[in-house]
Amino acid sequence: MQFHDHGYVSADPRVRPAAGTGIDRPSELPDEVDVLIVGSGPAGMLLAAQLAQFPSVTTRIVERRGGRLEIGQADGIQARSVETFQAFGFAEEITAEAYQITAMNFWTPDPKNPENIVRTSRTVDDPEGISEFPHLIVNQARVLDYFAAVAKNSPTRTTPDYGLEFVALKVGEGSYPVEVTLRHTTGEREGSERTVRAKYVVGCDGARSAVRGSIGRTMTGNQAMHAWAVMDVLAVTDFPDIRTKCAIQSEHGSILHIPREGGYLFRMYVDLGEVSPEDAGAVRRTTVDTAIAKANEILHPYTLDVRSVAWYSVYEVGHRLTDKFDDVPEGCEGQVPRVFIAGDACHTHSAKAGQGMNVSMQDGFNLGWKLGAVLEGRSPESLLATYSAERQKIAQNLIDFDKEWSTLMAKKPEEFESAQALGEFYVRTAEFPAGFMTQYEPSMITGEATHQGLAKGFPIGKRFKSVKVTRGADTNVIHLGHHARADGRWRLYAFADTDGSSLTEWAAWLAGSEDSPVNRFTPKGADLDAVFDVKAVYQQDYTAVDLSTVPPVFLPRVGPFQLIDYEKVYAALPDPDIFEARDIDRGGCVVVVRPDQYVAHVLPLSATSELTEFFAQNMLERAKVATA
Amino acid sequence: MQFHDHGYVSADPRVRPAAGTGIDRPSELPDEVDVLIVGSGPAGMLLAAQLAQFPSVTTRIVERRGGRLEIGQADGIQARSVETFQAFGFAEEITAEAYQITAMNFWTPDPKNPENIVRTSRTVDDPEGISEFPHLIVNQARVLDYFAAVAKNSPTRTTPDYGLEFVALKVGEGSYPVEVTLRHTTGEREGSERTVRAKYVVGCDGARSAVRGSIGRTMTGNQAMHAWAVMDVLAVTDFPDIRTKCAIQSEHGSILHIPREGGYLFRMYVDLGEVSPEDAGAVRRTTVDTAIAKANEILHPYTLDVRSVAWYSVYEVGHRLTDKFDDVPEGCEGQVPRVFIAGDACHTHSAKAGQGMNVSMQDGFNLGWKLGAVLEGRSPESLLATYSAERQKIAQNLIDFDKEWSTLMAKKPEEFESAQALGEFYVRTAEFPAGFMTQYEPSMITGEATHQGLAKGFPIGKRFKSVKVTRGADTNVIHLGHHARADGRWRLYAFADTDGSSLTEWAAWLAGSEDSPVNRFTPKGADLDAVFDVKAVYQQDYTAVDLSTVPPVFLPRVGPFQLIDYEKVYAALPDPDIFEARDIDRGGCVVVVRPDQYVAHVLPLSATSELTEFFAQNMLERAKVATA
Repeated sequence: MQFHDHGYVSADPRVRPAAGTGIDRPSELPDEVDVLIVGSGPAGMLLAAQLAQFPSVTTRIVERRGGRLEIGQADGIQARSVETFQAFGFAEEITAEAYQITAMNFWTPDPKNPENIVRTSRTVDDPEGISEFPHLIVNQARVLDYFAAVAKNSPTRTTPDYGLEFVALKVGEGSYPVEVTLRHTTGEREGSERTVRAKYVVGCDGARSAVRGSIGRTMTGNQAMHAWAVMDVLAVTDFPDIRTKCAIQSEHGSILHIPREGGYLFRMYVDLGEVSPEDAGAVRRTTVDTAIAKANEILHPYTLDVRSVAWYSVYEVGHRLTDKFDDVPEGCEGQVPRVFIAGDACHTHSAKAGQGMNVSMQDGFNLGWKLGAVLEGRSPESLLATYSAERQKIAQNLIDFDKEWSTLMAKKPEEFESAQALGEFYVRTAEFPAGFMTQYEPSMITGEATHQGLAKGFPIGKRFKSVKVTRGADTNVIHLGHHARADGRWRLYAFADTDGSSLTEWAAWLAGSEDSPVNRFTPKGADLDAVFDVKAVYQQDYTAVDLSTVPPVFLPRVGPFQLIDYEKVYAALPDPDIFEARDIDRGGCVVVVRPDQYVAHVLPLSATSELTEFFAQNMLERAKVATA
Repeated sequence: MQFHDHGYVSADPRVRPAAGTGIDRPSELPDEVDVLIVGSGPAGMLLAAQLAQFPSVTTRIVERRGGRLEIGQADGIQARSVETFQAFGFAEEITAEAYQITAMNFWTPDPKNPENIVRTSRTVDDPEGISEFPHLIVNQARVLDYFAAVAKNSPTRTTPDYGLEFVALKVGEGSYPVEVTLRHTTGEREGSERTVRAKYVVGCDGARSAVRGSIGRTMTGNQAMHAWAVMDVLAVTDFPDIRTKCAIQSEHGSILHIPREGGYLFRMYVDLGEVSPEDAGAVRRTTVDTAIAKANEILHPYTLDVRSVAWYSVYEVGHRLTDKFDDVPEGCEGQVPRVFIAGDACHTHSAKAGQGMNVSMQDGFNLGWKLGAVLEGRSPESLLATYSAERQKIAQNLIDFDKEWSTLMAKKPEEFESAQALGEFYVRTAEFPAGFMTQYEPSMITGEATHQGLAKGFPIGKRFKSVKVTRGADTNVIHLGHHARADGRWRLYAFADTDGSSLTEWAAWLAGSEDSPVNRFTPKGADLDAVFDVKAVYQQDYTAVDLSTVPPVFLPRVGPFQLIDYEKVYAALPDPDIFEARDIDRGGCVVVVRPDQYVAHVLPLSATSELTEFFAQNMLERAKVATA
């Protein structure tokens, strides 16, 4: 964590000095805002926390509820989400209070006595070490709390505007072209409406999104609905795997069992089967007592004595997807999108693979830095079209995976080739639910794989997978990727050649040439690293890295005192050696990483003009708007 | 982290439900309190946070300052302190914002050109893996903030009473025998005095402790004073080790250099030498400009361009110690102590070894649970005499170590046998400054080493050194010792024999025998684990641990719903195998650990009466006062 760069900070360094729109931020929603976010779920809150890092941008987030979420909703946190939390600064804290999934066990009917269930297989979660981050279970309410704290502690002091629901919008002309009608849902003004004008609106308002409706997008897909009873309960049981994630298949139905944070609570998804078109809501009237009775049947010979129900709900979900995540009609590709949708507003599916909250957050992470860059005048509006282009495909992949997984989960035990089949599928496909299968295609922000051979372990389009290195200045062993914060900056990881001469040449060009991205795209008067966070990674042991010979672009001066930032110079460890672990060419290379942590490009140190050309596609020359 | 045991918790689980004295806690200091702590430094704040875990106890902490500490003071956090923070629940958070010391470099005059300094040696901090916890630098102000948060989030909702200074006390008779006079230092009542009556008073009021004076204790020891200029600065320099802890010895004097949290700030202790008796405060008038000039001389050929001074002070300290840490006169050993002193009020020394704040916190940790146990009626008042008996010796060891270290640091370069001598001493003695050399002697709370051979790696009297194990119920790999919280409970770690039969017998006795400590010393109506947190560690892999055959004392029912606590059953890992790592007899044993994490006893599983006899020395039979 870096701070004191603008002077001594006495109290919590997570609380950053107010700046820009955060100074005298009005408590009342203003008439004109840059970005209006509708809905404070995972997509909306991440987006608010991300935009809170852009002090010149006015972001407001409205929420129909009168206050914070208290119970229920999603709880599965894939490793990619914890990686994202790390970039927002709260991975350690939330992990400390979460349940950590390290295993998933599978139960099926006992062949000798099919009335009873027996444990058929134990699987280890992430046996291949897909990520250094854990797989967690923690209530969505707490995830939202942490993002709310980040937003509030950011320069813009962003807090949600509770008690306001979205009614309608229309897109017109002018600087604030989107006119949004909102309605108060609580307090003295309950029922009254008001209008807000925005440059951009993002609908994070869930599966029944009114914002989606207002731009004419519809959910298409599987009409079949599947129902589950879901309960968060405190109970006494003799079921031995009550603190282990389990898929339980019995002759009486199936349960997905999820232990919860805190050591006592757990969640059971009790399968209620396909819902017939004639159901007319009958399944939703399934009581918690019925669900508990069914759980007892499924768990036989074990019993479940529920002492307290913290939350209970019946879900009915189909696999649905919108064709586009913004308001630009087909055939009008040059048009600037003004309204976006994210999260459940775009994609609905089962809860079985624990993906919903995670994919929604990545929607927000993908969109946030793009809106920030455009609103700060650093990038062209055309950047915004990449949001729908990138995320709609990911949602389609999610729907496909979840269909396969939930179909398997719904299968009767006797329909499987073997009792181990479900467990084997779980292990084989683990990278997807961990959140690391996303790979963006070439675009204005993702390069072609021409030079991928220089760093095979950093696939272009996939998220930058961190490796431990030594920080040169203080010899701390740290994860290279964990230095990246969700601050909207691009990262250039310059991996040195063996004797460092090519790196030195590249660094001299980057700092000195009028044609380098740093000089062309960093606002005048801003710190050298305001737009590009440039790091060097040497092949040698840290004792061989002499700070006095490291090129100055890797030791930039920052803040009012123009202090030296020492946290951009790294040395490979003997084990793991990042050059080995990521198959990096000993002649060095540059790995370009997007603000949302995806690898955008891999280039030789000599390919200076290609680097500039890449950024010329998505950045504006020496933008006038200063970053804070 | 365990919660939900009393029902569903929606918000931050670190905020525990108010209970006992925390319900309707008066904002104004009451006339009668159980414990009055004077001074909100490291000893006082830890003590307040510890006593905040005892809901029936009224604890107040008064502080002369009008609010929280903002700058300066101590900054070195040894691994033992981070271990302690872990027990209080904030190790992850504070580590995330701290500077981590992984190396210490030594600089001496260049033999070829003695005007210049050169790096003579690099040493690795904790090369032997003394602890799994890091060695940190973080401002005392933040340490106090974290303890303040723990106290406030505890059942008692304890917060400091700022703006009140200690004037005098006298010890009389009655239920609240200590009459304390306080004076308001701020606000409308500034200058006015008031009286508070307390059962116990703890003076954590620093080197010039007025509480110490009030009980007639004096500091004795070395009259020689040594002076340092200390500055926390933001600066630009070409000194290459500016982000590494260094001891710098030059022809112009010496510097102890400490990089600080946040990546930019650092602290330099510039040695001003011994203070002559005729000095009359002259050394204290050394200006920051003089100190900076001297630092530049010492650092030659490197330069230091100070851009901002966050804090500056001149320290004059001798090695001093009080002979006793409470108010019981020599020869009156049976008398109940009513007034204690802790931290700098008892011991002063140089800052060079980074010990002050750490030893002070351990003073508070030692005293806190004892006061809590006595005030809850669980232990006899005689327990309180062990505080001075245990901690005075530790302070003497500290003074001895610090004398040796600071004498070495003050030596001229040419007086050393070799340029590496200082670095070698640093590495050789690392366990002491890390905080792990403390070993309490046999007493009513520390057993004789008769059966030490059963667990050689858990020396009786030293702190319980954790090892990783698998938690049986959820297969999480966790540190066995990290489950222990600073909650005032004793811990019984029952290491199983190979087939578990002796463990089962022991468990049956513990749960069933009227003579077992659990049955004799747990208050009637309290949960089974209210006083003793009993855990089992099996020799086998977790897959061999069948929860249905684990004795119920290791799966206690807790809280209003009588839910099962599943976090007390552990299995050895293949590597490290705790039985190997701590040299535990394969026939099993019981390791008794005090509430402040020190190993109190090692006994065979068969030594049931010895176990009861041990606790009969320091506990009262079936105490009437219920724990919350």
